[in-house]
Amino acid sequence: RHYRFASTSSCYTTKFSYRQYLVSDLSNANLIDTSVSVYGWLQHRRKKLFGVLRDHSGLIQFILPISMKEQRTILEKTPFESCIHVKGILKKRPERDINTDMTLGHLEIHVTDYKVINACLPELPVNITKYHESHEITRLKYRYLDFRRDVMQERIRFRSSFIAKVREFLLKHSFVDIETPSLFRRTPGGAREFIVPTHLNEGGLFYALAQSPQQFKQLLMVGGFDRYFQIAKCFRDETGRPDRQPEFTQIDLELSFVSRENIFSLVEQLVVACWPEKLEKVSFPRLTFAEAMSRYGTDKPDTRFGLEIEHSSEQLSITSPIPINNANDLIDGDNDIKYDANNRKFLLNKTNNEQECLIKMGKFRLNLADVLEKHYGIELRKRRQWNFLWIIDFPLFTPMEDDRTKFESTHHPFTAPINEHVSLLSSKKDWPHITGQHYDLVLNGFEVAGGSIRIYDSSIQRFVLNDVLQLPIEHLEHLLQALEYGAPPHGGIALGLDRLLALVLETEHIRDVIAFPKTGNGKDLMAQAPSLVEQSELDYYFLQINRKHS
Amino acid sequence: RHYRFASTSSCYTTKFSYRQYLVSDLSNANLIDTSVSVYGWLQHRRKKLFGVLRDHSGLIQFILPISMKEQRTILEKTPFESCIHVKGILKKRPERDINTDMTLGHLEIHVTDYKVINACLPELPVNITKYHESHEITRLKYRYLDFRRDVMQERIRFRSSFIAKVREFLLKHSFVDIETPSLFRRTPGGAREFIVPTHLNEGGLFYALAQSPQQFKQLLMVGGFDRYFQIAKCFRDETGRPDRQPEFTQIDLELSFVSRENIFSLVEQLVVACWPEKLEKVSFPRLTFAEAMSRYGTDKPDTRFGLEIEHSSEQLSITSPIPINNANDLIDGDNDIKYDANNRKFLLNKTNNEQECLIKMGKFRLNLADVLEKHYGIELRKRRQWNFLWIIDFPLFTPMEDDRTKFESTHHPFTAPINEHVSLLSSKKDWPHITGQHYDLVLNGFEVAGGSIRIYDSSIQRFVLNDVLQLPIEHLEHLLQALEYGAPPHGGIALGLDRLLALVLETEHIRDVIAFPKTGNGKDLMAQAPSLVEQSELDYYFLQINRKHS
Repeated sequence: RHYRFASTSSCYTTKFSYRQYLVSDLSNANLIDTSVSVYGWLQHRRKKLFGVLRDHSGLIQFILPISMKEQRTILEKTPFESCIHVKGILKKRPERDINTDMTLGHLEIHVTDYKVINACLPELPVNITKYHESHEITRLKYRYLDFRRDVMQERIRFRSSFIAKVREFLLKHSFVDIETPSLFRRTPGGAREFIVPTHLNEGGLFYALAQSPQQFKQLLMVGGFDRYFQIAKCFRDETGRPDRQPEFTQIDLELSFVSRENIFSLVEQLVVACWPEKLEKVSFPRLTFAEAMSRYGTDKPDTRFGLEIEHSSEQLSITSPIPINNANDLIDGDNDIKYDANNRKFLLNKTNNEQECLIKMGKFRLNLADVLEKHYGIELRKRRQWNFLWIIDFPLFTPMEDDRTKFESTHHPFTAPINEHVSLLSSKKDWPHITGQHYDLVLNGFEVAGGSIRIYDSSIQRFVLNDVLQLPIEHLEHLLQALEYGAPPHGGIALGLDRLLALVLETEHIRDVIAFPKTGNGKDLMAQAPSLVEQSELDYYFLQINRKHS
Repeated sequence: RHYRFASTSSCYTTKFSYRQYLVSDLSNANLIDTSVSVYGWLQHRRKKLFGVLRDHSGLIQFILPISMKEQRTILEKTPFESCIHVKGILKKRPERDINTDMTLGHLEIHVTDYKVINACLPELPVNITKYHESHEITRLKYRYLDFRRDVMQERIRFRSSFIAKVREFLLKHSFVDIETPSLFRRTPGGAREFIVPTHLNEGGLFYALAQSPQQFKQLLMVGGFDRYFQIAKCFRDETGRPDRQPEFTQIDLELSFVSRENIFSLVEQLVVACWPEKLEKVSFPRLTFAEAMSRYGTDKPDTRFGLEIEHSSEQLSITSPIPINNANDLIDGDNDIKYDANNRKFLLNKTNNEQECLIKMGKFRLNLADVLEKHYGIELRKRRQWNFLWIIDFPLFTPMEDDRTKFESTHHPFTAPINEHVSLLSSKKDWPHITGQHYDLVLNGFEVAGGSIRIYDSSIQRFVLNDVLQLPIEHLEHLLQALEYGAPPHGGIALGLDRLLALVLETEHIRDVIAFPKTGNGKDLMAQAPSLVEQSELDYYFLQINRKHS
């Protein structure tokens, strides 16, 4: 368990409190046969006799002697999860009574004082014991009770210590921790940003909640800060994307006078320094975007297993290691993929849009892996196996889906082309062939970081925004201007903290590593946010609801 | 200077970069007569001969030999503040040429390669040298250039290291760093909160930007986290309060099983551990709210000087240490305060509302102090003198100004009454006489922290919200419910980080210690936020502008 404190640090755990000991402190052999006092929650109780007190550090049994009649009656009526105070003599249990399932199963408190500090309602909506997990909707509604479960204590405490290690590493390497604003203005060409109305100018003026500190960190480089980091809260209005959150956290970095190689080296050492296990044997191979697409049909391949896409002149195929019985179930709903039982091959005829075929096979590859693991008992992905991978050499621009003569940034508009390709900007037909200095870090099939070396030449940046991407440049005039004042070459990266923690802690949903997450459609089930506001408040911002454009 | 790195750590300062040395690294005597390469900005230049390169760590002079004709011409034309690269042999200067104003004034680089990486526009809107400071409006508009000034590098880097010390202290004492959401729902009875429209339910549903993590940290205590901290971004819509920011940062703390004494001890040790100077002789005296008002006419007295308010049966007075010549100028616009030249006393007749009289005298006391310092050369307040003060025993409720039969919280609705006064809640006439477990930390006349021991009994909390404060309780149902599930006794505090840093760094405005601040009326002068949004975006949120209620 990550979160249990060593008892040697007990002087710190109870300083600044009137509690004498945490439960874990009681493991100190010097305390046996002395009077101890602990505070916590009533986890179990047997008749009037025994109780188990829990705090975040552990469990301890306590016994009420027959003489304490009144307090035994109180114990019998104390609801589980009430906040209680127990004082008594710490004793070794008789050999025959030792509970080997409990860390402190060899100890018990012979109570001299038992007090209910704050009684709990008798019916608990959330199961606190670790054996059963309540439905997630209930857990989110009663998050404060969900926190009392061991696994949630562990996750949230691990998150704190992981972030502390990240900070320690970066501060040691001369990074400066700089807070940037959340209330900002719209950045064109990115995700949808929340808007925040203001009272200024009789209405109509809005902040946008910053979707990332991208512009600020570049401006900090122009300002000579050289090495910036921030554990940054970011906001995106992505209603309806189930594993996204309207606010999320990234480890945000930017450095001046760096190459891609410098960033790779930095991130690799940062990850190794902060990982809970030693990552000595782990490597960080690189794959070009083109190769990733060709072999895995995705730009974030899970390389813990093979099942790579094979190419022939007419077809793409994936070979199953063993015969598949109900192949139709597996390719259910996709009439394009055929199964050749003789060769154990799943086949797809190439079409004009080979990219789409590859993506289809990439998705199929993951389904096949699931089926092989679940129904055929073939272990493709081991627990605590970490396959990192850098994806490099992305195209700088991607043709837009609805009009392929127009382009959007594959990464974002501030990514620089590789030096050898700068000259290709002058000819529109070359735009799709420009390679960008963008890089993603992939872990076990998830993108956990993305970054790039940035454009620091104002005229190139202006050309990319104006001529290639055709974005409304007036929103970015300040950044273009800043580049004209001796901006240094710079680059950076952002690591998705929530996803990284979900992977490290082997939980499927990022909601499990966020203290107060929202549901997939952005609702806080505990406080019932978002909620209606009064008309007077809308009036203050010169707003009214208008559904006619819905 | 706080921000200069010791050269011993140079291995870290240039790792993960293609730059070989920071300027401060060149102080290493082993480098003399070797080839060195530095990157930075052109700070000075004399003809074609000399230049001074600056990075955040210092300044170094470089000399172009006569043989480098082409590069000398380039240097002559390089605008100040261009980003440059200098390579050459590091030499000791001849004794007669040593510049004692520069840390590395005994060194110079004999250039073998000079390159302009990114030229700067020839006209600089902001003065980078420390001798003159540009107008704040210009500094905010070109914040990225303002950052290049020594003093701004120092402030922002100091902020990073100060926060790092705060974290180190709290993590050592078993606090858990927990991020809480910014997108939340309205909290009744507090400051005005920004609202954030959502697309859900065809409009009408809004988040509120959390004005503080108050509710979340209390819910974390209910969840058994015991010790929480966060360097928390907070949002308040306080248009037009000149020294406020719409977003600001607080060091936010909460602990279970604590008394006021525990919190005092924690904060005092935290401040001492993080202060840039040793605070050995500094004490943290306590003053009740009543006594602070009586002696200083404010709940945040500057105790670096006396000039205390004297009370007689009819009058309040303050005695000047020396005769004041133009007393009328000092009491300008206030006909109530009279000057008794014989006794050097400023007098105010008591009225029915003694509180108002005290506040008036409290403000006058500060004006008198300014005048005595500015015009009479009497030093009342020394530089780097730190007068901390706990203000305690606030009334729990304050009568509302417009209807004195109604009450609002002096602190906030979650503050507990002292134990001895809980019973007074049952009788309305006793409400004004209930003392709350609220405490403020004052430093040199500024409130730098505020907190309280909280109500953990659900029925008391419900009574206070419903009966005393008459607040719309439905916004807080989740918190009331949480208290019913065995909530532990708890309390906490929040330190205003921006104000604390402004005091430590001896600057008047919190804007000077915030990387990207907004003006007093909430404008980002650099990016021109807030700004107009397109109608399509308002449509997405089912909103339209309506000025008829303006």
